[in-house]
Amino acid sequence: MTFEEAQSYFSFKETVTCLEELDTPIPVIDLEIVLQNLISVQRYFDNLGIAFRPHVKTHKMVPFAKIQLHLGACGITVQKLGEAEIMAEAGIGDILIAYNIIGQRKLTRLINLARQTKLTLVADNEFCISQLNTVAASKNLNLDLLIECDTGFKRNGLANPEQVLQLAQTIFSSSNLRFKGLMTYPPSGARKEVSALLSNLRMVLEGNGIPVESVSSGGTRDLFLKEGLEGITEYRAGTYIFNDRMILEKGSCQLRNCAARVLTTVVSKPTKDRIILDAGSKALTSDLNGLIGYGIDPSSQAKVRKLNEEHGQMEVIGEPSPNVGDLVEILPNHICPVINLYDYIALKSGNKILGLVKVDARGCVS
Amino acid sequence: MTFEEAQSYFSFKETVTCLEELDTPIPVIDLEIVLQNLISVQRYFDNLGIAFRPHVKTHKMVPFAKIQLHLGACGITVQKLGEAEIMAEAGIGDILIAYNIIGQRKLTRLINLARQTKLTLVADNEFCISQLNTVAASKNLNLDLLIECDTGFKRNGLANPEQVLQLAQTIFSSSNLRFKGLMTYPPSGARKEVSALLSNLRMVLEGNGIPVESVSSGGTRDLFLKEGLEGITEYRAGTYIFNDRMILEKGSCQLRNCAARVLTTVVSKPTKDRIILDAGSKALTSDLNGLIGYGIDPSSQAKVRKLNEEHGQMEVIGEPSPNVGDLVEILPNHICPVINLYDYIALKSGNKILGLVKVDARGCVS
Repeated sequence: MTFEEAQSYFSFKETVTCLEELDTPIPVIDLEIVLQNLISVQRYFDNLGIAFRPHVKTHKMVPFAKIQLHLGACGITVQKLGEAEIMAEAGIGDILIAYNIIGQRKLTRLINLARQTKLTLVADNEFCISQLNTVAASKNLNLDLLIECDTGFKRNGLANPEQVLQLAQTIFSSSNLRFKGLMTYPPSGARKEVSALLSNLRMVLEGNGIPVESVSSGGTRDLFLKEGLEGITEYRAGTYIFNDRMILEKGSCQLRNCAARVLTTVVSKPTKDRIILDAGSKALTSDLNGLIGYGIDPSSQAKVRKLNEEHGQMEVIGEPSPNVGDLVEILPNHICPVINLYDYIALKSGNKILGLVKVDARGCVS
Repeated sequence: MTFEEAQSYFSFKETVTCLEELDTPIPVIDLEIVLQNLISVQRYFDNLGIAFRPHVKTHKMVPFAKIQLHLGACGITVQKLGEAEIMAEAGIGDILIAYNIIGQRKLTRLINLARQTKLTLVADNEFCISQLNTVAASKNLNLDLLIECDTGFKRNGLANPEQVLQLAQTIFSSSNLRFKGLMTYPPSGARKEVSALLSNLRMVLEGNGIPVESVSSGGTRDLFLKEGLEGITEYRAGTYIFNDRMILEKGSCQLRNCAARVLTTVVSKPTKDRIILDAGSKALTSDLNGLIGYGIDPSSQAKVRKLNEEHGQMEVIGEPSPNVGDLVEILPNHICPVINLYDYIALKSGNKILGLVKVDARGCVS
């Protein structure tokens, strides 16, 4: 895919030509870097023979999802129904909702969605499965299901083989559910152990007559670690499209792979060692993720030391330091929740701003 | 104002009658508690003879702003131009923008706004003042201005009396600016010192022939401390409308004054001591504000111990503990950035849900 082809996916709310014409704070995303990230990761999984299913929770934008599919993604991953609804409405036809769907109102939405697009669902408990089967049966639909396994991240998911087998048997014997396989969000740095755990679960299930079609793992931080991918049929990653300070400091990408900055303006310089940016927690989030500061200016290494809602306090490093009115580009700690704060982001190519693009699924948390 | 009068300010996107009909996560706000908070604080300042100018950054909703004005507020405070634009469009006629306006694009927006409504602006530097005067002169407008003073919070603002005097003289001699007085966001727990600092600054200015019409201070945490309010002509507060865990644990309100919860659903219970809520950092924010955990269920005292973007990990306390499918209401650490994450909140009265209300100025960070 050429840059021009990628650009043709976007319709701009407003055409802007340079950074100085933008209102701050706003995320600015380099489409050339994005395209390199998307192509290289898709090729990597193509070469490994593993289906790649990007997670759109990071970008939340239909054009990026369509580019990912054009490049060879097998479908997309979402975390919430609202994201799936936006993407299905835009014509995206193969969606994994990697999250237990719970509650009557959500089940109604789910059924409407299942009539519109190919869905795969996830569950880690009997309550969820029972509700899914009841609603599917009442609407005469069949739903595909993966079991979420905890492979050490200790969030959702089952770890015990007997529990996984029991849940798989429940799904297998449910009238309107189809058991498809296993899903996990693995802890970083444990690829081999995770692979061994998943292989063991697969053996237990297949030994009990339950075929495992899909084994889905994910995460950007360990994406390029080739070890421990045996047995994985599908990989999910979200952050890789933009990367962020967390991925950079983990050593899982280079600065040249970081496509997104939050453009800010220096609004005050009350003392020699303190600059105030117009980006606070409502613009950068308070995510620390083990890092020092709430974001960094990669050109000077200066950090955002403290945040209030609309103020970012930045340390002053070196000379000449920024003055009131200057623009400062911040590499955020964690890009996913940042994009979710904005209705529009600015798309750029090198030094040229192309325009403002809508964040289609912003705020879709339910 | 009666509850019925307050309710009449709202138009509901959707009428819902009980919690179980809501999609989670969503903030649920008790209008009766809100009304008590609004009335008691307005009366408090009325009795003190201090003008009260509530900060709408917390609620970002036109109906709440109109109720605040109906009850006697002298106007509203906003932090960003985007908030002011929404409020002015809705007919609100006296707005303090408590933030340096920097940059050509913002100045254009500001001039449009100044033609529409009565504005007071704030500045703490020459660059800001010079740009404001230039644009005001070119459009034949006059702008009212306060100087932001740092009284110990160490964010924006000037602390040195000579610097404040110099800036006031610059404003005083600017063709299209009117010097109105001083503004500060004080540190908590230093009311007397702040009052002394502001009185001294006022004396310096008036001793140099510059009248100080307004002295504006603020903050919810010290709101009910009567000491050190001498010389304050105007008070700004935002969080007091809802209160939150931070205000509660500081001892500045009671639980019965906390009007907002984030309604969540238990989506998984993978182990006996771990419940997963469908509210993560995109629903509760990562604001800690010195507290342990990212929110609390006041009914059980259980805390949200860990957040991912769409998952909240909650400790299990006591029996019976919540099961998958149960609703859990979380008192968030810091309500202001939470409301900013949602397009709609649910309004309730006791156990009755009244309906969904739009967050008018959500995402207005520029």
